[in-house]
Amino acid sequence: MMSKKAIVLLSGGLDSATTLFDSQAKGYQTFCLIFDYGQRHAKEILQAKKLARYAKSEYRVVKISLPWGGSALLDKRIALPKNRKDIAHKQNIPVTYVAARNLIFLSFAASYAETVGANAIFIGANAVDYSGYPDCRPEFYQAFQLAMKRGLKTGVGGRPIKIYMPLIHKTKGGIIRLGRKLKVPYQLTWSCYAGGKKPCGVCDSCLIRARGFKEAGVIDRP
Amino acid sequence: MMSKKAIVLLSGGLDSATTLFDSQAKGYQTFCLIFDYGQRHAKEILQAKKLARYAKSEYRVVKISLPWGGSALLDKRIALPKNRKDIAHKQNIPVTYVAARNLIFLSFAASYAETVGANAIFIGANAVDYSGYPDCRPEFYQAFQLAMKRGLKTGVGGRPIKIYMPLIHKTKGGIIRLGRKLKVPYQLTWSCYAGGKKPCGVCDSCLIRARGFKEAGVIDRP
Repeated sequence: MMSKKAIVLLSGGLDSATTLFDSQAKGYQTFCLIFDYGQRHAKEILQAKKLARYAKSEYRVVKISLPWGGSALLDKRIALPKNRKDIAHKQNIPVTYVAARNLIFLSFAASYAETVGANAIFIGANAVDYSGYPDCRPEFYQAFQLAMKRGLKTGVGGRPIKIYMPLIHKTKGGIIRLGRKLKVPYQLTWSCYAGGKKPCGVCDSCLIRARGFKEAGVIDRP
Repeated sequence: MMSKKAIVLLSGGLDSATTLFDSQAKGYQTFCLIFDYGQRHAKEILQAKKLARYAKSEYRVVKISLPWGGSALLDKRIALPKNRKDIAHKQNIPVTYVAARNLIFLSFAASYAETVGANAIFIGANAVDYSGYPDCRPEFYQAFQLAMKRGLKTGVGGRPIKIYMPLIHKTKGGIIRLGRKLKVPYQLTWSCYAGGKKPCGVCDSCLIRARGFKEAGVIDRP
């Protein structure tokens, strides 16, 4: 009997895949939320759907248009950084930053949560490898949780919705070690920003993934 | 010379129209944000565009799908309330409530603001006639403002984005009196929830509008 329900933000990457399996291991019935926001790497949407089906989870795909552009993830005229050695430096906000992306994602998650009666949102946010995105920091999530408590029907009447970030203090290697225990099918995950048929191997996301598998002592099989 | 920029959430209704003209009177260069979220009353989108053009404002239309439904504004199987006498009672959340709607709207506004370099968001929220929506209350906006401050590039580096609600403590009559001073073209606004060619005259929104014009002593000319 399952009574705990959770929305899981699922991108198709390895962090959110691990988060999905972690939330299920904690006894939640999951509802995956997948975003199609015109990202270069549309392949991650395909992989996210495969992951949700593999995990026998309900899922919804939300299509978002941001008619003001401005990120290298959306705009092919902006070059993606390659082979950066400073990906660990968190002071600089990268060109792959999408304005207010996590605000938008969480708002849809709140709407989905309220509609299905979930009072948990799981997100694979990570403070170690977050690559300089301000909306990946715990203090941002705390403020958003308060906004949900005050702005939603659920928050006013029933139990407020909580945001869970099981990976927040883990290294990429630690995430992969957790995922191995949870039997996450990493062969279904997708990290590359570039949007080719195979991972490019040189974008920030590919570099972080490779470093993580190396740290965990695990081979990344396609 | 205009240097202050503001995003204005523009629905096509009279509150947001008044807010648009109020923000321009305060010296802001405006960027209107119009949402197409499958509402019954698609006519309001058309009117919102007309209002933005009339005000010589830039605007963007964002199309949103909420694939979980659940509101009378989106789902034609749910009956709209008619001729309710208790529209002033704020304890009950009406069936026209769209889960997390203002959270979603504000998140897109934050993204637009950050992209064009605006540090103000104007919204026609109103605590007097808000008909029981929890996400129309000032304490919700305060929490959201904090989330933006913590989660956005602008908030981290530059001046944080502020939310302005010039109508928050006004009655509908007071809003219309202000709008008359600002020369708001109310004949272009649309309030009815029902989505016909003419206002139905019996939904909550039509009733509130009629009461407001009566209170202001102004004739509502189509």
